[in-house]
Amino acid sequence: MNEPVVPTPTLSWRRRLFRQLEPEAWPAEGLSRLNRFICVLILVTAFAAILETESSIRIGRESWFLAIEWVAGSLFVIEYLARVWVAVEDPRFRHPILGRLRYVLTFPALVDLLAILPLFLGLVGMEALFMRLIRVLRILRLARLGRFSVALRALGQAVRARQFELYVSFGLALLVLLFSSMMLYLLEGGLQPEAFGSIPRAMWWSVATLTTVGYGDVYPLTGIGRFFAALTALSGIGIIAMPTGIMAAAFSEAMQKNPRR
Amino acid sequence: MNEPVVPTPTLSWRRRLFRQLEPEAWPAEGLSRLNRFICVLILVTAFAAILETESSIRIGRESWFLAIEWVAGSLFVIEYLARVWVAVEDPRFRHPILGRLRYVLTFPALVDLLAILPLFLGLVGMEALFMRLIRVLRILRLARLGRFSVALRALGQAVRARQFELYVSFGLALLVLLFSSMMLYLLEGGLQPEAFGSIPRAMWWSVATLTTVGYGDVYPLTGIGRFFAALTALSGIGIIAMPTGIMAAAFSEAMQKNPRR
Amino acid sequence: MNEPVVPTPTLSWRRRLFRQLEPEAWPAEGLSRLNRFICVLILVTAFAAILETESSIRIGRESWFLAIEWVAGSLFVIEYLARVWVAVEDPRFRHPILGRLRYVLTFPALVDLLAILPLFLGLVGMEALFMRLIRVLRILRLARLGRFSVALRALGQAVRARQFELYVSFGLALLVLLFSSMMLYLLEGGLQPEAFGSIPRAMWWSVATLTTVGYGDVYPLTGIGRFFAALTALSGIGIIAMPTGIMAAAFSEAMQKNPRR
Amino acid sequence: MNEPVVPTPTLSWRRRLFRQLEPEAWPAEGLSRLNRFICVLILVTAFAAILETESSIRIGRESWFLAIEWVAGSLFVIEYLARVWVAVEDPRFRHPILGRLRYVLTFPALVDLLAILPLFLGLVGMEALFMRLIRVLRILRLARLGRFSVALRALGQAVRARQFELYVSFGLALLVLLFSSMMLYLLEGGLQPEAFGSIPRAMWWSVATLTTVGYGDVYPLTGIGRFFAALTALSGIGIIAMPTGIMAAAFSEAMQKNPRR
Repeated sequence: MNEPVVPTPTLSWRRRLFRQLEPEAWPAEGLSRLNRFICVLILVTAFAAILETESSIRIGRESWFLAIEWVAGSLFVIEYLARVWVAVEDPRFRHPILGRLRYVLTFPALVDLLAILPLFLGLVGMEALFMRLIRVLRILRLARLGRFSVALRALGQAVRARQFELYVSFGLALLVLLFSSMMLYLLEGGLQPEAFGSIPRAMWWSVATLTTVGYGDVYPLTGIGRFFAALTALSGIGIIAMPTGIMAAAFSEAMQKNPRR
Repeated sequence: MNEPVVPTPTLSWRRRLFRQLEPEAWPAEGLSRLNRFICVLILVTAFAAILETESSIRIGRESWFLAIEWVAGSLFVIEYLARVWVAVEDPRFRHPILGRLRYVLTFPALVDLLAILPLFLGLVGMEALFMRLIRVLRILRLARLGRFSVALRALGQAVRARQFELYVSFGLALLVLLFSSMMLYLLEGGLQPEAFGSIPRAMWWSVATLTTVGYGDVYPLTGIGRFFAALTALSGIGIIAMPTGIMAAAFSEAMQKNPRR
Repeated sequence: MNEPVVPTPTLSWRRRLFRQLEPEAWPAEGLSRLNRFICVLILVTAFAAILETESSIRIGRESWFLAIEWVAGSLFVIEYLARVWVAVEDPRFRHPILGRLRYVLTFPALVDLLAILPLFLGLVGMEALFMRLIRVLRILRLARLGRFSVALRALGQAVRARQFELYVSFGLALLVLLFSSMMLYLLEGGLQPEAFGSIPRAMWWSVATLTTVGYGDVYPLTGIGRFFAALTALSGIGIIAMPTGIMAAAFSEAMQKNPRR
Repeated sequence: MNEPVVPTPTLSWRRRLFRQLEPEAWPAEGLSRLNRFICVLILVTAFAAILETESSIRIGRESWFLAIEWVAGSLFVIEYLARVWVAVEDPRFRHPILGRLRYVLTFPALVDLLAILPLFLGLVGMEALFMRLIRVLRILRLARLGRFSVALRALGQAVRARQFELYVSFGLALLVLLFSSMMLYLLEGGLQPEAFGSIPRAMWWSVATLTTVGYGDVYPLTGIGRFFAALTALSGIGIIAMPTGIMAAAFSEAMQKNPRR
């Protein structure tokens, strides 16, 4: 009971940075200050990339968007290099060269690499549209940060545990979809060849009706067609009820298991 | 402890084929390799028949669709004959002739017969549309294979156990449907005879509103008409809530009872 | 233990008819044969009255509809007189004259009287539309027959038990409705005076959006208007979730209490 | 058992008024008669303000609306002064001057002040539109009266307790929204620049589809665009299922805790 106090060794800079960058190595609750800053940066660049697609916003402000992209992009490059540098702190990637190489080939690291690609591709004259999409998809990097990724994994497990129920309910939904498409193809195909002239065409109407979206771009015109459309709309209630119930149960179950400290 | 090893008798070819074809006779979990192949075949032909209705896909590729149909159709004929041959392995159809005859008249066997009809009817110049539909409906054969049929039966029982609740909720829904149709017929029938000129016509609008599909092809134009339409839309929430709750409960109950080995 | 068998006294014709007509006096399960026949008659006349509003069905078949109405109407008159005659079998209406008078003034008896009015009003040249509606409303007579009325009463009690929850959720829904109408009136009122030129007008759009019906006759055109419309549509999910959950729970609770012999 | 009857001291007028005005000081169940009258007054003026925005109702009835506003407004002024006068009965605002000053700066008192502003602003020639909105927003004063405010607070707590689940489900919904907008922007942007020419534009369609509102003002036209739209509509079922389930559970939980005397 008379133990000498072990002095906590001062952490190396690499170790400190690793703790800041790796959410699972962070000792406190929530995200580290650095990761929170990266989150904000990801949101800003993704938001900018979304707005940039709208020409009425982009035109006249190209320099702003360029500046955001260059600043954020440079920081993402630094972040990427830092992550590679500190990777050896992870027991899985101990070896200075091979460990870092293996880290670079992990899925999250490849996503990070993809996220900084637009910066370099822009230099070699890559198409703007493609790069913009990659920049929007940077938002997916958020998915692996903090509790959201834990929640997603728990949700994934809960859904997998009920996959058979989901298969059956989707199977039933597909049968109803197929049957209603076929009926409307038969009943309205001659009158409205553009909308119901084939089963795949009728399926567009059928999905819009079963999900109760109901755009109203296509709808039956004959009495008997409307009668079957009404049956389809009503059966849509049951079709939606089943996966909804399963998903809601899976979600609430997953959330109850979720570790909230 | 000194039991002589009973040699497992080698199974006859007919018995082996019966096990492969009959899901309930299959000793292992899941579907036999042969039934899995038949499932794929059914999906392929049904999918081909669906695509074939779209003239922009069919024209120029008639020979492909014909080939798929002839190959799959021939295999279905062989499968049908094989099923008749092995039927006597089933204790219910022991007699070589009468047993097989009785098997041929069972519901699943009649469905199988229907599924191979298009092949022969094509030879005697039957109408293409009718045959195409039968080929699409082949997909229903999937319903009796494996766990899906068990799930469907369990779901059917759960729904039957709540049939009174479903009757009451559908009765209420019908009363609301009838009442809202009548009100809109009275209030908008004069202004929009095409859409609300009779109660059956107003019902088309009413179903689209109560199910929240809302195509938007017909809608009230007067203030008082819109007031009652808003009430209808709001009461649609309750109308949908009741069968949804019943169906979701029935479905989750049915799935919990489902044997998952 | 040596009790003499009490001979069941032969029932009077009036008593027998009373048992046939009054669901609660019927000793066996379900409805009596006479009441089942009356149900069918009600459904037939209501269905005929619905179809009669559609001129493409009515024209050329007026005599059919007249025949259905005269036959069914006469039978309803006979039924009404029979009900008055046997009313004295009910302990509440024992007195031959005063008892029957009091029975005639009960709510169900007044509904029955209303149901036979069209027959006599037709003779004195009453307007056809009004009479047709009364004939459609005859369907409400079904509501008091058999288990459906028991179920409705149980449902009514369950809803009443949760009336405070329903008030709160409807109060919240009204606040959201009012707020979104006001926002769209402010943002789109100038641009689309026909659709959003006042709060009551904007409410039509707002109800269609919150209930997810979405006819698409009116929708915002500006960016900021669409932003608030999107918020409205998303908050519609919560708005619907609350009364749906309450109603589904009330309904399932009511049904569990329902006496099923 | 021989206790002398303690004479209930006659309450001062200020104390009596305080009890009438302050719902939490009211000894009996429900609302005091005075507060019930104020509720009716709030509803009447808010309803009048809503109707007044509709010019077809306002024109020719300006004097009525003015009268309602002047009478109700004067009563609200009197009510406000009375509330300030009796505020010192509240233990928190004991001091005759400082206590009242602090009461005046509480949130509910500021809302009350805002509610009587239109009356005075009208005298100095304020814009009619702005004043009308304030008058509509008077309805928010109802929120703090009686059990509704208790229910709202309980609901707020229940929602806060599940805020993480709600974040996750909204996060997922946003990812699906973003992904479907991006796909439709890519697939239909060239064909329909007005509707899908940028990601923010495509989001309008995406929200309408995921919430199943489906106005039908914009929808994909190509086959591949419709295929992704169908996937979006189907995934909308799951997207809605999750927050619906959470909100419904939170609401029913909040209501069960609600004190019903």
